[in-house]
Amino acid sequence: MLTIFIQQLIERLGRDKVSQNETELFRHSHDESFHKPVEPDVVCFPENRQDVETIMGVARAFQVPVTAFGAGSGLEGQAIPIKKGISINFERMNQVVNFSPEDLLITVQPGITRLQLNKLVNRHGLMFPIDPGADATIGGMVANNASGTTAVRYGSTRDQLLNLEVVLANGTVIHTGSHAKKSSSGYHLTGMFAGSEGTLGIITEITLRLHGIPEHTVAARCTFDTPKACAEAAAAILHTGIPVMRMELVDADSISQVNTYGGYTFPVNHSLFFEFAGTKNAVEEEVKFAEQLMRELGCENWDIASDSKERMELWKARHELAYAYRHIKGMAVTSADVCVPISRLPELVVYAREVISKSGLLGGIFGHVGDGNFHTMVVFDPKVEGEKEKAEYTNEALALRAIELGGTCTGEHGVGLGKIKFQEKEHGEALTIMKQIKQLLDPDGLLNPGKIF
Amino acid sequence: MLTIFIQQLIERLGRDKVSQNETELFRHSHDESFHKPVEPDVVCFPENRQDVETIMGVARAFQVPVTAFGAGSGLEGQAIPIKKGISINFERMNQVVNFSPEDLLITVQPGITRLQLNKLVNRHGLMFPIDPGADATIGGMVANNASGTTAVRYGSTRDQLLNLEVVLANGTVIHTGSHAKKSSSGYHLTGMFAGSEGTLGIITEITLRLHGIPEHTVAARCTFDTPKACAEAAAAILHTGIPVMRMELVDADSISQVNTYGGYTFPVNHSLFFEFAGTKNAVEEEVKFAEQLMRELGCENWDIASDSKERMELWKARHELAYAYRHIKGMAVTSADVCVPISRLPELVVYAREVISKSGLLGGIFGHVGDGNFHTMVVFDPKVEGEKEKAEYTNEALALRAIELGGTCTGEHGVGLGKIKFQEKEHGEALTIMKQIKQLLDPDGLLNPGKIF
Repeated sequence: MLTIFIQQLIERLGRDKVSQNETELFRHSHDESFHKPVEPDVVCFPENRQDVETIMGVARAFQVPVTAFGAGSGLEGQAIPIKKGISINFERMNQVVNFSPEDLLITVQPGITRLQLNKLVNRHGLMFPIDPGADATIGGMVANNASGTTAVRYGSTRDQLLNLEVVLANGTVIHTGSHAKKSSSGYHLTGMFAGSEGTLGIITEITLRLHGIPEHTVAARCTFDTPKACAEAAAAILHTGIPVMRMELVDADSISQVNTYGGYTFPVNHSLFFEFAGTKNAVEEEVKFAEQLMRELGCENWDIASDSKERMELWKARHELAYAYRHIKGMAVTSADVCVPISRLPELVVYAREVISKSGLLGGIFGHVGDGNFHTMVVFDPKVEGEKEKAEYTNEALALRAIELGGTCTGEHGVGLGKIKFQEKEHGEALTIMKQIKQLLDPDGLLNPGKIF
Repeated sequence: MLTIFIQQLIERLGRDKVSQNETELFRHSHDESFHKPVEPDVVCFPENRQDVETIMGVARAFQVPVTAFGAGSGLEGQAIPIKKGISINFERMNQVVNFSPEDLLITVQPGITRLQLNKLVNRHGLMFPIDPGADATIGGMVANNASGTTAVRYGSTRDQLLNLEVVLANGTVIHTGSHAKKSSSGYHLTGMFAGSEGTLGIITEITLRLHGIPEHTVAARCTFDTPKACAEAAAAILHTGIPVMRMELVDADSISQVNTYGGYTFPVNHSLFFEFAGTKNAVEEEVKFAEQLMRELGCENWDIASDSKERMELWKARHELAYAYRHIKGMAVTSADVCVPISRLPELVVYAREVISKSGLLGGIFGHVGDGNFHTMVVFDPKVEGEKEKAEYTNEALALRAIELGGTCTGEHGVGLGKIKFQEKEHGEALTIMKQIKQLLDPDGLLNPGKIF
């Protein structure tokens, strides 16, 4: 039986843009997190902004929740339609609207993925550098203010935005900025919609900064005796002002897990992974300087690679890490995403190890230490009573400690479902203002209800 | 006669923090713009956040407007209390709250000026790089999202912010961020309060990113036959990816005005001013490459200087420019602040020259061409009927054209009084959302009324 709002969607959008197919409902019920899947009532596949306006109109008329869905690669349940209703899939809105290489700007629809985008712009010597690992959609990355390994150099997705086109809950279409590189005109709505996780409006167009592809890239890897020593070495690099492209920590337990999972023999110690990029001369100077500094700080190995295949090989343990934890048969994984000022990073890394050890569960520490941002992965057996709670407790302890140290419970994954409980502690009275803004823009609570707050 | 709200302020703050002295009322009646001065009823000098809360409490109780005042160096009348009431001067709130050199972070009160701040942090090898020319307060720079000559490398003031403490109209005190370098937690209020020109709350603490002072700096200057050629040369430099520290245009008319004003003999042609900064080797490479490129594009001179005194000398025409226009006896000046995508810069510069020429007034073009942002200064005699209107028309024509080219009416000066008339054209329906946010946070309209909207 078709409910009336679905009939309306079919009538107004056409049957091929509306699906209740079981596979589609299942695909839109979950992301890559361990949060409980919930199927939407229906999935819509808009092909342009007008389709999104139509969907929003039906949602308003029938008071049905609307949740945007990108690549489903989120880690905090943002795309799970926990109140059911309409899931909007943007895979048919993956076009370039306008590409201006001379301005280092591109305007895209939200459904284009970052690899699709880079394929298009790379041939012009340009890149969209933000790299969260997964091939997320640009819309999803904007909605969650994603970042990843290159944030140490380029910042987060929010920092790449010049303009957003947004369909509001009341049907109004706004643009939040312009194509000017900077502006002091009016309130900065672009920054507010970025990271709002689909709770304030549906983004239908995105104007992004692009960056030149560096001429030369060198990867490096070294190991230390303790994760604390890694964190301190990362801070030392930052203070030299070397504009590292990537700087990642992988702790010994995680290296060990990668070895087990992939049959590798990487040296089981706490490792720092680097990437340096720029003109050839500058990179060579930086690498030499970084090596000297790391050796002074007591690093045990210093391997480098400049050829693209060798670089991949050198970084393999970092790349395969998430899979190594996620693909243990029958087991589930929780992941923390804390971010603190770099000076507090060593103590938080030490604390993370303690908390994981106390839990008795398998787990590791890794992440973007150049930003003060790192993750834990803690593996639990959903069938064993109490294990999930123990795993979640590690996240909770870590998030609370990060907030106490002047940091945040989420550096890049977003709030979604998993970080709601820390919002009051982190934001205090500001949370009231955020809720009022939500109420102002979405008085009926139709946009991704149950997220952030 | 003291009105009751002023008596209340004196009672609750103490007499030494409240002034109705004529000199003070006059000082707080204007900024550096040509907008009509209006004196406040009273000036308050808070010494801490509690004093600001007290002032806000009295303002609420008596429904009196409150306008924040920094250094009075604004260019669009933001600090002019056009509805009278209370002017809050932050000169006694100019302390460092917390300095964490290892995190490249500092928390300051809003009344500290950028030169005071740099004096403190420079000795640690760090700097706050944003340079709007004037020795503005950090509070004023945040409120207007100021930038200036270094934005081409470091972005605007908004890009330097990690956290703001804000006293809201209803008396609530919020903090908008954390000390983490990046965050995906909650709505990005920091970005919204930055650039809100004191209309959403009173900022009482600011946490800023700092940057390392580059090891080596080289200044350069070259000239071209047309402003268009300068704009094209600026775009060409950007495309090479050279991270210029500063890149400024000064047109021939402005050079001529500087020569007249200061008795100099700078070559009267359209000039590009550069600063390159970094490690010695990198800078030398960059300068060599830039010179080659500029010569290929037909530049006529290429002068460089690396010694600090010689650099100052080389940049003199740029530094003295604003004074050269502002200090013509009996004359007033209007200033535009347009910003467009770099590819549209040459045509907008050509248009600016046409519009100024047609006005028959003395005027020049200069600015931060690396951002696509430039200013005009047009000199008029306030005593001659119609001259002010002609001067203002040049601004208006330019702002409208900038918006049509995908840009903004204000790249860095802010909206204040002068750019209100362009807000609807630039922001469209988004302006309604901005007004609703204003209404939400300041329902009685007490915070800097009459600005932005």
